Amino acid sequence: MNLLLLEEADFIGPDRVILSDRRLTHMQEVHRSAVGDNLRVGRIGGLMGTAQVLRLEAREAELQVILDQAPPAKLPLTLVLALPRPKMLRRVFQTVATMGVPRVVLVNSYRVEKSFWQTPFLEPEAIREQLILGLEQARDSVLPEIVIEKRFKPFVEDRLPALVDGTLGLVGHPGNHPPCPRALTEPVTLAIGPEGGWIPYEIELLGKAGLQPVQLGERILRVETAVTALLARLF
Amino acid sequence: MNLLLLEEADFIGPDRVILSDRRLTHMQEVHRSAVGDNLRVGRIGGLMGTAQVLRLEAREAELQVILDQAPPAKLPLTLVLALPRPKMLRRVFQTVATMGVPRVVLVNSYRVEKSFWQTPFLEPEAIREQLILGLEQARDSVLPEIVIEKRFKPFVEDRLPALVDGTLGLVGHPGNHPPCPRALTEPVTLAIGPEGGWIPYEIELLGKAGLQPVQLGERILRVETAVTALLARLF
Repeated sequence: MNLLLLEEADFIGPDRVILSDRRLTHMQEVHRSAVGDNLRVGRIGGLMGTAQVLRLEAREAELQVILDQAPPAKLPLTLVLALPRPKMLRRVFQTVATMGVPRVVLVNSYRVEKSFWQTPFLEPEAIREQLILGLEQARDSVLPEIVIEKRFKPFVEDRLPALVDGTLGLVGHPGNHPPCPRALTEPVTLAIGPEGGWIPYEIELLGKAGLQPVQLGERILRVETAVTALLARLF
Repeated sequence: MNLLLLEEADFIGPDRVILSDRRLTHMQEVHRSAVGDNLRVGRIGGLMGTAQVLRLEAREAELQVILDQAPPAKLPLTLVLALPRPKMLRRVFQTVATMGVPRVVLVNSYRVEKSFWQTPFLEPEAIREQLILGLEQARDSVLPEIVIEKRFKPFVEDRLPALVDGTLGLVGHPGNHPPCPRALTEPVTLAIGPEGGWIPYEIELLGKAGLQPVQLGERILRVETAVTALLARLF
């Protein structure tokens, strides 16, 4: 936790918060905070800044906050991601939040196992929990938007073209394709497939929606590693 | 498992192997292999190719192998890594093997907790297990070399300069440094710090050994994410 994120419900006044959950435990056990100490904080969806510990008791802490810094810029990116297996999904939520992806669309794909859609990690509170861990890691206060599209074809045919419009559309896909471009400043829509990759029919439909295949070399990466590697290369 | 890796002990003849462990289970449960099927295989430390299933029983399988393909090239890199916490360490071993890092030096650092050095995940068999998972993912047959240097100063002063010689020496470090360079083809020696980063004294000693600080932006990445992001940007 490199940033302590504050929820609306924590505020008892314009510049005062009370904490009593895992953030208090973290202050006590990791930071070993004392009254008078300053901590980096951010208001979820708002500014970042510092907080001074006014009162620190076993069950709650009171902080005075000064929020005067803009959060770091997000990447100019929409990430379309075939739903990963549940254990990977949790880490991917953290990774996209840490890396500064502002919007993720989770889609179905032929090689996504149907059971993956049943995971409790897709419930809004579970998603939010992982995103917050990722923001705390990166020092960012703005949650990415997570969109769930359980049906591939209607999403790709009816809604994806509008997302791609005005952006560079790319789909990560192994094979004899151009290498992933580097150091872009323009907006990008990037699709990343499931373990085992997209099937040819999906690549064809994504192509019609404006996403052209690019590759990262002959090594096959886990989804989480592919997300990080593609973003680090693109921007 | 995108590649089935063969150990020397599996060979019962120049082109015959017998499998009976988790690789047999994987053939049965994931690939749902049958006699006559072909699988991608690699000989650890040697060539890659295909294997045909000659015999498939509950407790063992016999395969005929043709090894005629070179493994993918490794990155021209030595990675010097402050020892991560044990859970992260296991994933980092997989990641470096997947990404094609040929040599990793694990070093101590002021911010590495002493207890991390006690982890059973540092035992040679445990390291090898994770590296093999990473190679199976990437489709590579050559194990990275893992060097353990428990004392920072003697390593950096006495042995690091020889490793850096003839390479571009870099250390990932947040702050007002040049951005991490892109698309290099020359050999690199790259150091990545612990959670919380290197301390100034360590940056100074690394600098004397020939490693100059570079940064990846204001977001703070987990070690595993930083490794992937730096490698994807450098090469």
